[in-house]
Amino acid sequence: MAGEFTYRDAGVDIDAMNRALTQIKESVHRTFTPAVLTELGAFAGCMRLETVGYQEPVLVASIDGVGTKVRVARMMNSYKVLGHDVVTHGVNDLLVQAARPLLFLDYLAMAKLEPEALIQVVEGAAEACQAHGIALIGGETAEMPDVYLPGELDVAGCIIGIAERAQIPTPARVDVGDAVIGIASNGLHTNGYSLARKVLFELANLRLDEYLPEVGMMLGDALLLPHRSYFHAVYPLLDTGAIHAMAHITGGGLYENIPRVLPSDMRVTIDRRSWEVPPLFRLIQQHGNVSDAEMFRVFNMGIGFVLIVARERASEILDALQRVGEAAWLLGEVQRGPREVQII
Amino acid sequence: MAGEFTYRDAGVDIDAMNRALTQIKESVHRTFTPAVLTELGAFAGCMRLETVGYQEPVLVASIDGVGTKVRVARMMNSYKVLGHDVVTHGVNDLLVQAARPLLFLDYLAMAKLEPEALIQVVEGAAEACQAHGIALIGGETAEMPDVYLPGELDVAGCIIGIAERAQIPTPARVDVGDAVIGIASNGLHTNGYSLARKVLFELANLRLDEYLPEVGMMLGDALLLPHRSYFHAVYPLLDTGAIHAMAHITGGGLYENIPRVLPSDMRVTIDRRSWEVPPLFRLIQQHGNVSDAEMFRVFNMGIGFVLIVARERASEILDALQRVGEAAWLLGEVQRGPREVQII
Repeated sequence: MAGEFTYRDAGVDIDAMNRALTQIKESVHRTFTPAVLTELGAFAGCMRLETVGYQEPVLVASIDGVGTKVRVARMMNSYKVLGHDVVTHGVNDLLVQAARPLLFLDYLAMAKLEPEALIQVVEGAAEACQAHGIALIGGETAEMPDVYLPGELDVAGCIIGIAERAQIPTPARVDVGDAVIGIASNGLHTNGYSLARKVLFELANLRLDEYLPEVGMMLGDALLLPHRSYFHAVYPLLDTGAIHAMAHITGGGLYENIPRVLPSDMRVTIDRRSWEVPPLFRLIQQHGNVSDAEMFRVFNMGIGFVLIVARERASEILDALQRVGEAAWLLGEVQRGPREVQII
Repeated sequence: MAGEFTYRDAGVDIDAMNRALTQIKESVHRTFTPAVLTELGAFAGCMRLETVGYQEPVLVASIDGVGTKVRVARMMNSYKVLGHDVVTHGVNDLLVQAARPLLFLDYLAMAKLEPEALIQVVEGAAEACQAHGIALIGGETAEMPDVYLPGELDVAGCIIGIAERAQIPTPARVDVGDAVIGIASNGLHTNGYSLARKVLFELANLRLDEYLPEVGMMLGDALLLPHRSYFHAVYPLLDTGAIHAMAHITGGGLYENIPRVLPSDMRVTIDRRSWEVPPLFRLIQQHGNVSDAEMFRVFNMGIGFVLIVARERASEILDALQRVGEAAWLLGEVQRGPREVQII
């Protein structure tokens, strides 16, 4: 071999990484609240812990990725939504535990640093953080030649929040006869992309720029719609005391996510005529000849978040949701039975 | 196409994932302290926040990966160390901010679920958590066909701890004349693996089972030595008030990690004869014809953690470290100058 061997030869370019990090600094700073005590580049982010007003404060934490939505982002060369989604996915998971998010940390890894993708992802995450008063307090960017396929990236993130212990729902609060309310999603959110891509691109041979009249936009745009946050609509309703349990409808769909918050002797029955499954899901089902059961196990099918509420308070909660612009429906009810969801 | 199309056809096997998750449940449960309020499978992990004894509690958070050490783990078919390392890396990052770790969340992603790898990683993480009293409160496992190279996996994790604000070091505490103490690493920890692999396997054509007399073990074993935790040795010393700053020596080595905790008008001068660079690093340098500067910018070179302490307390701190079994050396001192590290 000729000459010296450097880290750059091994596929890792620390300087290019540093340049991108400088560019994202500004986005991240916009999320900094006065409670943040550290600057970017600290070994660990520090945030003053304010527990005033909490009787029994509980730390609530969740870590998530965005699945193979990263593949569609790559095909569209549009990465901002990934940063947004990894934050809102976590916000919704925390909301299930009645928690208000405080801080977020992102993890980005790829074969070879693509500064533009990196900047967009962090920008998207920072905007979603700002919209929820979350400090983007840390992050890690890894170049991993030989682990990721060329050009691909993965995005994950960890969110930490705080909840009042007495307000955290437990299955014990759910009762037979409780109403099950569903709030609209706006697309696939971040689940089912492996199946959707296979069906739409490999089986149906659709193109990203194919206009879908029934959806009202191009396929690529429909697939990159952001994962909705339900925080601003739902968090204020926790004080009503009417909400007995919540579920964020992610991988596993209604079938697998609702039972996570049910007592062992109760099931939920859902009337599938209570809302209309959006056209994008029907398109996937038709092109892939996918069974109903499989569709409902993989996709949210138009329902992004579920509330289980006292029956007599259901219309009050539905009204409140609709007042803040949410499309929400009474999907069904809690019944005696094995812990499961029946969609009939 | 014949028949129905299912999620499994798309490369995602939810059932196999669920079986593995059942197996790791036991490892994770061992980390649960009485403060943990949620079971595995909750949308977000909940932990009672205990701030008794803290005047001004600060949340401290860090997210990390283990870099391409995952490649070596794959070659050795031994994944437990990855789980261990992602925890101890975070523990050390928190320690820099004088924080005691409370909870950890892991993120594992791969092209196709390999239950054995998954189980080992979580087992390694759970053991490292237990050794530090950390609750492994959540995790995410993602199968990402089309993003990861076949057989490869990535491991990341987020750690949250608590610190007393008055005890968190700031650059303002560092003073000219302060002593710089280095504590021994036991190998590459989790940094420089892309360069190390390229040099050792591609340039030098060494085999994993090659016995290295100077190192005293096989190459594969040397490369998979765990990332050390400095928590138990260093955390008790924080009460002495003698420690003005700390640095965890990760990617960027001594050159880039020490300046992160220096004031802008001070530099650190290190005498490289003050400790012996371990044989594994010398082996990489020789085989790759890598410059000194590059070696010290990529690898820890035998120093895993650095303390900057009041000069007159240096021998007391060195004694205390040696008493608990740490190899530690006086590396150099803080001087007036631009914020940098000089290794002479």
